[in-house]
Amino acid sequence: MKVGTRHYRTIWLAEDGRTVRIIDQTRLPHDFVLADLTTMDQAATAIADMWVRGAPLIGATAGYGMALQMAEDPSDAGLARGHAVLLATRPTAVNLRWALDDMRRLLAPLPPSDRTAAAYARAAEICDEDVEINRRIGTHGLALIEAIAARKPGPVNILTHCNAGWLATVDWGTATAPIYLAAAKGIPLHVWVDETRPRNQGAHLTAWEMDSHAIPHHLIVDNAGGHLMQHGQVDMVIVGTDRTTAQGDVCNKIGTYLKALAAHDNGVPFYVALPSPTIDWTVRDGVAEIPIEERSADEVSFVQGKLADGTRTRLRISPEGTPAANPAFDVTPARLVTGLITERGIAPASAQGLAALFPDLAP
Amino acid sequence: MKVGTRHYRTIWLAEDGRTVRIIDQTRLPHDFVLADLTTMDQAATAIADMWVRGAPLIGATAGYGMALQMAEDPSDAGLARGHAVLLATRPTAVNLRWALDDMRRLLAPLPPSDRTAAAYARAAEICDEDVEINRRIGTHGLALIEAIAARKPGPVNILTHCNAGWLATVDWGTATAPIYLAAAKGIPLHVWVDETRPRNQGAHLTAWEMDSHAIPHHLIVDNAGGHLMQHGQVDMVIVGTDRTTAQGDVCNKIGTYLKALAAHDNGVPFYVALPSPTIDWTVRDGVAEIPIEERSADEVSFVQGKLADGTRTRLRISPEGTPAANPAFDVTPARLVTGLITERGIAPASAQGLAALFPDLAP
Repeated sequence: MKVGTRHYRTIWLAEDGRTVRIIDQTRLPHDFVLADLTTMDQAATAIADMWVRGAPLIGATAGYGMALQMAEDPSDAGLARGHAVLLATRPTAVNLRWALDDMRRLLAPLPPSDRTAAAYARAAEICDEDVEINRRIGTHGLALIEAIAARKPGPVNILTHCNAGWLATVDWGTATAPIYLAAAKGIPLHVWVDETRPRNQGAHLTAWEMDSHAIPHHLIVDNAGGHLMQHGQVDMVIVGTDRTTAQGDVCNKIGTYLKALAAHDNGVPFYVALPSPTIDWTVRDGVAEIPIEERSADEVSFVQGKLADGTRTRLRISPEGTPAANPAFDVTPARLVTGLITERGIAPASAQGLAALFPDLAP
Repeated sequence: MKVGTRHYRTIWLAEDGRTVRIIDQTRLPHDFVLADLTTMDQAATAIADMWVRGAPLIGATAGYGMALQMAEDPSDAGLARGHAVLLATRPTAVNLRWALDDMRRLLAPLPPSDRTAAAYARAAEICDEDVEINRRIGTHGLALIEAIAARKPGPVNILTHCNAGWLATVDWGTATAPIYLAAAKGIPLHVWVDETRPRNQGAHLTAWEMDSHAIPHHLIVDNAGGHLMQHGQVDMVIVGTDRTTAQGDVCNKIGTYLKALAAHDNGVPFYVALPSPTIDWTVRDGVAEIPIEERSADEVSFVQGKLADGTRTRLRISPEGTPAANPAFDVTPARLVTGLITERGIAPASAQGLAALFPDLAP
């Protein structure tokens, strides 16, 4: 998508045909800084330290991480080490394991001398596939926005939580793809951006994306969405997901469930945009079965941002003696989800709905 | 309540019998600083700039503000000016108008020479009445906590939003009074403290209160409560209220509604603690009728806190180009409220429930 007047993806191959270039997302929204990855270990650090984040982009970075590893050490031992180190970077991302297993399946049967070229080619393909999946999600979601625009005057008000934007993918984003396509078609839009504590990905990343594309938006605290819905100021909610179960339960950034409850209580349609690789067909009941990552208490006790003089730093907001708890995700039961926007179309959030759209994948 | 080993109220008369002393709550949780109010204009500033906040404490400060004004200018013009200046400090607080009208009704018929003494006496009385009301709220709420403690092992897990603690009142607090009484009785407790963006009164004030009283607690982001309730980690919710309607709708800090929805969805009892002066008998449908204060966008775009070197400052969390919206309160419909804990007992959140407990006040 656009940064200034230039088109960027979130990950690409540099001119030397070996170095992998990314946007260091920890520096956004205040600085737009690129970073070069020249080794597998650097790719692992980029994932673990969240220079890149978002399930699809993590998968793509893992793919390129394996390519970097093959360029360093294409032996069987090198392949095993790359898979192990990259897999250990983030505990929950389904796409991470998917991409690593995919690369290993491709590379293992090849002679080491052929592995590097094959790995780079497949990593590029994973990126292109992600872009195409998101473009299709956008097309299906666009139809929902057009339908709302057709029946009401003024802008279509869309609320989103966290960042399921192009920064979370290779391009387009999942939840944002319909928004970008609608904006390109000239449909009047306005986006409510949840700041999304504790890491504030909404304030840091989604707001930056909307600002970069001149899409009218307002930042709001995570507490505000219910009030806005009570007063007719939200026409639809679109969020992303880190993992979706076979019966349509949605595991996403903490707080998504509260917004889904408010949408349900006020008759506001609540959509989840997802590429099919984030469906975990082995899990049915998300609340009971999905383990939730408990992250560092510091993310709650401190807030990151920029001082008036431009310095990036963090502030403590609570007493030193106060401990914090930090569950990073929650599960929204399928009963609260209006529909799942996938690359193949919109599925009802149910086992039957998903099976009908993905008969080749459903158990 | 306790600060270190000393007992404090949030407002009291200094040794000179004229100066009013308060805790400058804008300095909490990092510094405990007292402030002296020697003029009515200082009292107005203390309310407007939120050195004091919380409906009951605002009322008490307004009472003492009128006393300070009588000490300066006990004429009819002085009385009118004090009433007008203090009333303009905060738009929504019901107790503010109640206290000012009460003082004017008392003072207006008196000769100016008698007004100062009468004003100080009545202001002290307003404070004592508030303490007694909160103590009674505490007693009624304590019975609810005892009932939960009797039927489950381990601590009673209570979630609260914003600060309806002793810092919001003259002493005890509303939502916290049952907690302090239960702790004093040795009932094992654990409190989930919502940070309560945008102003973070939970992180700044409620966490500080719990820490000061050694009550086990964890700070959480406002997004986390739903997840905790889904997993049985919340036994009850107790919040305060800025205004309660005659049919039991509850206007409170933004985000309260989302927690009430989650409590309802998970069968967790949701209680609201309130002194009867916060009931607005003229309003029935809270969502439709109560105007919601829209506060400065800076409260959303910036976060206040303390740097590692101890400096208190604020950080920008969003891009410069991103505007913010900041509705400060929301309305929780009575259907989501398990009960209203008042100084006269616990009322169902309904017109009949409130009328039965307050036949002398209900319309």
